[in-house]
Amino acid sequence: MLEQTVTMAHGSGGESTGRLIAELFAKNFSNEYLDRMTDSSVVPGSAQIAMTTDSFVVTPVEYPGGDIGRLAVCGTVNDLLMSGAVPKYLTAGFILEEGLPMETLRRVVKSMADTAREAGVLIVTGDTKVVENHSSDAKGEGGLYINTAGVGFVPEGTRLDAASIRPGDKILVSGTLGEHHATILAKRMGLENESLESDNAPLDDIVNHLRTSGAAVRAMRDVTRGGLATVLSEFVLSSGQQIEIEESLIPVKKPVRDFCGILGLEPVYMGNEGKLIAVIAPEDASKALDAVRSAKYGENAAIIGEVTGDHGEGSAELILKTPVGGRRVLGPLYGEGLPRIC
Amino acid sequence: MLEQTVTMAHGSGGESTGRLIAELFAKNFSNEYLDRMTDSSVVPGSAQIAMTTDSFVVTPVEYPGGDIGRLAVCGTVNDLLMSGAVPKYLTAGFILEEGLPMETLRRVVKSMADTAREAGVLIVTGDTKVVENHSSDAKGEGGLYINTAGVGFVPEGTRLDAASIRPGDKILVSGTLGEHHATILAKRMGLENESLESDNAPLDDIVNHLRTSGAAVRAMRDVTRGGLATVLSEFVLSSGQQIEIEESLIPVKKPVRDFCGILGLEPVYMGNEGKLIAVIAPEDASKALDAVRSAKYGENAAIIGEVTGDHGEGSAELILKTPVGGRRVLGPLYGEGLPRIC
Repeated sequence: MLEQTVTMAHGSGGESTGRLIAELFAKNFSNEYLDRMTDSSVVPGSAQIAMTTDSFVVTPVEYPGGDIGRLAVCGTVNDLLMSGAVPKYLTAGFILEEGLPMETLRRVVKSMADTAREAGVLIVTGDTKVVENHSSDAKGEGGLYINTAGVGFVPEGTRLDAASIRPGDKILVSGTLGEHHATILAKRMGLENESLESDNAPLDDIVNHLRTSGAAVRAMRDVTRGGLATVLSEFVLSSGQQIEIEESLIPVKKPVRDFCGILGLEPVYMGNEGKLIAVIAPEDASKALDAVRSAKYGENAAIIGEVTGDHGEGSAELILKTPVGGRRVLGPLYGEGLPRIC
Repeated sequence: MLEQTVTMAHGSGGESTGRLIAELFAKNFSNEYLDRMTDSSVVPGSAQIAMTTDSFVVTPVEYPGGDIGRLAVCGTVNDLLMSGAVPKYLTAGFILEEGLPMETLRRVVKSMADTAREAGVLIVTGDTKVVENHSSDAKGEGGLYINTAGVGFVPEGTRLDAASIRPGDKILVSGTLGEHHATILAKRMGLENESLESDNAPLDDIVNHLRTSGAAVRAMRDVTRGGLATVLSEFVLSSGQQIEIEESLIPVKKPVRDFCGILGLEPVYMGNEGKLIAVIAPEDASKALDAVRSAKYGENAAIIGEVTGDHGEGSAELILKTPVGGRRVLGPLYGEGLPRIC
């Protein structure tokens, strides 16, 4: 039996740590590699691998549509996918604050395990540390941070590079924007808005459908912190090509639109945790759109604009065309954004 | 120019995060893969890979003989080495508390870079998050946590397994015990003991010397939290073989012995961050000892005991033979140990 809350002893590396690992992590994450319970996991490799890491510090740790565990799996899986890799293995590093309710940890770990299964990856090794609880929240409960690092296999000939973006290419977004950001923000503000739910999801099915469709994908990025405008600004910068998007074509759910309207927020700068942008060769745009729309989490995909070309050195910009015929230059997110959104 | 201290904006994913990455992480860790500045790093792989992860939460973050950055590199490199892998790539995930002095972070990052070079590994991708500072320390400065995950290549035919331990095998320890633990503990107690210094070091040279020597190594483990007794207890458990060690042969430096004496601590339970235990075939013991002694950080290596065999079901124990002829049964570390030692 595990204690009701996490204590410093759970991070000692001794007997308490052993029980926490056996009764919680090993049971939920079980697979042939993790089950060997070695400090390093030896797994089949590949000629080219992709590696990524992300630490997750989101507060609150549970929110409508997801939790820090689901986020930690999706974030790393999605980063691997965006490099053209097939995600294979994750590592999981837990930093727990003493006082964290064991039930919270149990739900988070179960959610990680479920999400890993959904995304087709194995959690092959892990680590647990416990730190003092300096929590300033009303309940005084401890929180947790999760780091996931991931390894994916990169098929030969894979090349995704914003530098290959060309005039005429279409901008595809895989779904509605802003849900994760709006959900976390509403929770932090203490608003009980039942129509807001995070989009927290793995993008493997969308990427697989795109790949199978045969559409020529020039570049692909998940749209996380900083939002659509930040990702597209980076595409403009690295390709030297102007990109123009139509505000009226950008999919945003009504509750998010309403929430943004009240607070003066812009969906194009809001963070997501289950959306991607793909730049597609013009002749393949409708094929790509059909592919994404038929994938899990891709039903609201849309083509929202195009690459309009090289308008002379240094002058390429990201342009938002407004419904009333205006043209607004968008830059990357500047300043704080919303801390601890992921 | 970076700010004097870390602020929440450094974790926003926006412009401040970008400057921190460019001016601190990218400059220090620079290599052909990291320099591409992609979310995932695509690197050459291998048919069999080892993966490991560790989060480091040590306080204080700087101490005689090392710091959290050196620790984070050594810990993961050493875990990979113990699985028989050649360490190749690390990921680095930073969780910074706001208020962390930028100079502290600069020193830690430089130390990580130096240690990675020393150990022959590349830091190929990273992540930075900032959390509120609830620090209860007198200075009110923010601290930091570092997660490193590592990938190593596993040569074909590599097999290290405690189950292969046989009667007569010799127990080799690569150097003096207890320095890291004693150093951290003394610092926490506010003692200025200038003769104590952590053993914080990568074990690659020792492992390479052992490999080149051709000595038959049955099993190998780094001796970290829980100390020698915990590692050897696990060997006893997984092999079913009794192990007997001589207290008088266990190398311990005088300052550590004195410190332990005053506080009633036992070096065999103290944590290290640059020591390994290897179980060696009897005929190769002196060859292995010579090899380790000629390696960097191996000059104080010693043979401290042997495997005395299967004494019937369930009865195998770890025995410490004392200088006065006593025989004491040692178990693994039970209880708290020293939290946040790594």
